[in-house]
Amino acid sequence: MGWNRVAVVGVGMIKFGELFEKSYEALLQEAYLAAIRSVDKGFDPGEIQAGWLGTCLGSAMGLEIPGGASLAATVGLVEIPVTRVENGCPTGSDTFRNACLGVASGVYDVAIAIGVEKMRDKPTEESLLSIAAQGHPILSRGGIAPSLFAPQATRHMHEFGTTKEQMALVAVKNHHNGCLDPYAHFQTEITVEQVLSSPPVSYPLQLLDCCPQTDGAAAAILCRADLARRYTDRPVYVAGFGMGSDYLYLTEKERATEFAATRRAAKQAYAMAGVSPRDIDVAEVHDCFTITEILNYEDLGFCEKGEGGRFIQEGKSQLSQLGGSLPVNPSGGLLAKGHPLAATGLAQIAELYWHLREESSVSNRQAHLRRGYALQHNVGGFGIATSVVTILTNHAD
Amino acid sequence: MGWNRVAVVGVGMIKFGELFEKSYEALLQEAYLAAIRSVDKGFDPGEIQAGWLGTCLGSAMGLEIPGGASLAATVGLVEIPVTRVENGCPTGSDTFRNACLGVASGVYDVAIAIGVEKMRDKPTEESLLSIAAQGHPILSRGGIAPSLFAPQATRHMHEFGTTKEQMALVAVKNHHNGCLDPYAHFQTEITVEQVLSSPPVSYPLQLLDCCPQTDGAAAAILCRADLARRYTDRPVYVAGFGMGSDYLYLTEKERATEFAATRRAAKQAYAMAGVSPRDIDVAEVHDCFTITEILNYEDLGFCEKGEGGRFIQEGKSQLSQLGGSLPVNPSGGLLAKGHPLAATGLAQIAELYWHLREESSVSNRQAHLRRGYALQHNVGGFGIATSVVTILTNHAD
Repeated sequence: MGWNRVAVVGVGMIKFGELFEKSYEALLQEAYLAAIRSVDKGFDPGEIQAGWLGTCLGSAMGLEIPGGASLAATVGLVEIPVTRVENGCPTGSDTFRNACLGVASGVYDVAIAIGVEKMRDKPTEESLLSIAAQGHPILSRGGIAPSLFAPQATRHMHEFGTTKEQMALVAVKNHHNGCLDPYAHFQTEITVEQVLSSPPVSYPLQLLDCCPQTDGAAAAILCRADLARRYTDRPVYVAGFGMGSDYLYLTEKERATEFAATRRAAKQAYAMAGVSPRDIDVAEVHDCFTITEILNYEDLGFCEKGEGGRFIQEGKSQLSQLGGSLPVNPSGGLLAKGHPLAATGLAQIAELYWHLREESSVSNRQAHLRRGYALQHNVGGFGIATSVVTILTNHAD
Repeated sequence: MGWNRVAVVGVGMIKFGELFEKSYEALLQEAYLAAIRSVDKGFDPGEIQAGWLGTCLGSAMGLEIPGGASLAATVGLVEIPVTRVENGCPTGSDTFRNACLGVASGVYDVAIAIGVEKMRDKPTEESLLSIAAQGHPILSRGGIAPSLFAPQATRHMHEFGTTKEQMALVAVKNHHNGCLDPYAHFQTEITVEQVLSSPPVSYPLQLLDCCPQTDGAAAAILCRADLARRYTDRPVYVAGFGMGSDYLYLTEKERATEFAATRRAAKQAYAMAGVSPRDIDVAEVHDCFTITEILNYEDLGFCEKGEGGRFIQEGKSQLSQLGGSLPVNPSGGLLAKGHPLAATGLAQIAELYWHLREESSVSNRQAHLRRGYALQHNVGGFGIATSVVTILTNHAD
């Protein structure tokens, strides 16, 4: 009943972390090779007819302008088109979405989507946000990413009684999950007390409410759904996707307790896939801050408006083996796995691919599959005004 | 016989030039409104289901990160997805290509592609190339854009006897054409002597061999070919497109006398459109420098390898009314119309749309239509390693 015109037949990612010793090109190549090698029945890279490269930070730093050719040349795919996508925090999922459109267009049978980011080896004064802050009407007034998400937290606390303890539970859950994910940047259990007593960043967000700065890369190989069984007997299908926008400034937005871009993206994705939130077995969502995951529960329809705090408190988003009914961020999420901007969306796709195929690599955190649908989500960019939602399934009917 | 699954039903651009008095958002809005208003049978912007925004310079400056939402929010299209594409000099044509794929995928019936660039109102020391130069293995050794294209010129002169006079003729032709185009940055006739005596920039390129730095914006409205007659009785169809890559460094490239990326893009585009260079009535090609246009003649198959200098000298690329058999850059090209990176490709599409529809706005430079095919081309990006070729037609059969 879904769209199901495009299949994912391979995914790859590298261990996220502080990768000072590896170049941008090395990250890109490692994720590329991991994706190629993951294809069950083997894969000749010469079959790739088009590529989409997601990467943000190079140009934001002013140090390089990594066009599509930086993928093409690095892996030797010079015959093919490679588009470079940059769209803030949802860059990875928008890169994947454009590759889906390319394959669905009928112009390309097989495509690659790859996201890569070096976030750590830059001087602090040249970090993305400090550069972006120059001349920006909000950021130049002392804003940092946490202070863009803090107002949503205070307003949600005010309107719905959401607590800092509930937010802390998101960090505790995701750091627990990260301990089970060998690709995660952080692999340490934390407690609610540790979150609440970590250094304050932007009220009410403490340090452990915030995701780290992380290097990483991830990739997916996509093909026409009717060709998928050439490559694997267990393809994952793209059931649907959506992408929404919003006005850029808080003063222009309708409500401070939700992300309208996410709601718009989710509405499109559910309609395209012909499913509802009840059909989702597992989700990887954009937990750049703990409050973001709580808002996502509501914006994605996992619970009612205002119920996000209770959703985490009641354990509904825990891993299946801990009794969760809709496991969210089994990979550790942005909070524990890390958030290398353009790599994040594709790493989420990889995690969900493994769950939908019940691969041994995720057996320690495998989501219980009921309906066979998984949801991927990013939200962000300037003004938190862009969101992408992707719905994957392990069955084509 | 071509692809013809997507139609262009409206185009818009603003007068290119030094637009210090207008903001980025103002350029974007003007091009957007011009495209909307150009649709013959009227057009409700609410019909736009997806957008692609091409823009390079903001993030290269480190001053802003203009994601897709900067289009969505500026024109009020917050319900729809907007992908931001950045791919060096071919950004505009790659933006158009991704919009084509989006429409052809069947997911979106109507889409907009828009390119916008503010190039002039930045301090020189923060210009695109000076920032990009930091840390770049070629540019940091004193390279500027002209010095990346100069080696192709000297080698072409050495191997094929191409002369500086022939290169100058490209500038003379395009500046003449620019005088006929009210949208062009420069509208002044120049002579071969003026080109040859203009200040040297990077041997053998003089100042008038180089395109200017220009502000601008341009847009196109695309729809499913089968819906085109809702909007106009004279749609222009996308017969085909191609995009090729190349290795980044001169030492890795096979030949210094051609752009392999262009040859790859052209091969794909001609095959997709089912036509050959002989079917092209008019072309807008990437004349960032005079030598580039001469190489393009060869790389696009308008003449044999090594014959590019003779092609311009014999007047073949002149306007039809001056006896040209394949008019190239009737708009004035990058040399006279200007080159606001991401806007350039879409402005080329606009010029060709007007020619294919024989609009009164181009009657002073109208190409003689024989077969009804027009070709658009960009090449560039780091390492001159990315090229896009688009073939448009005024008939769907």
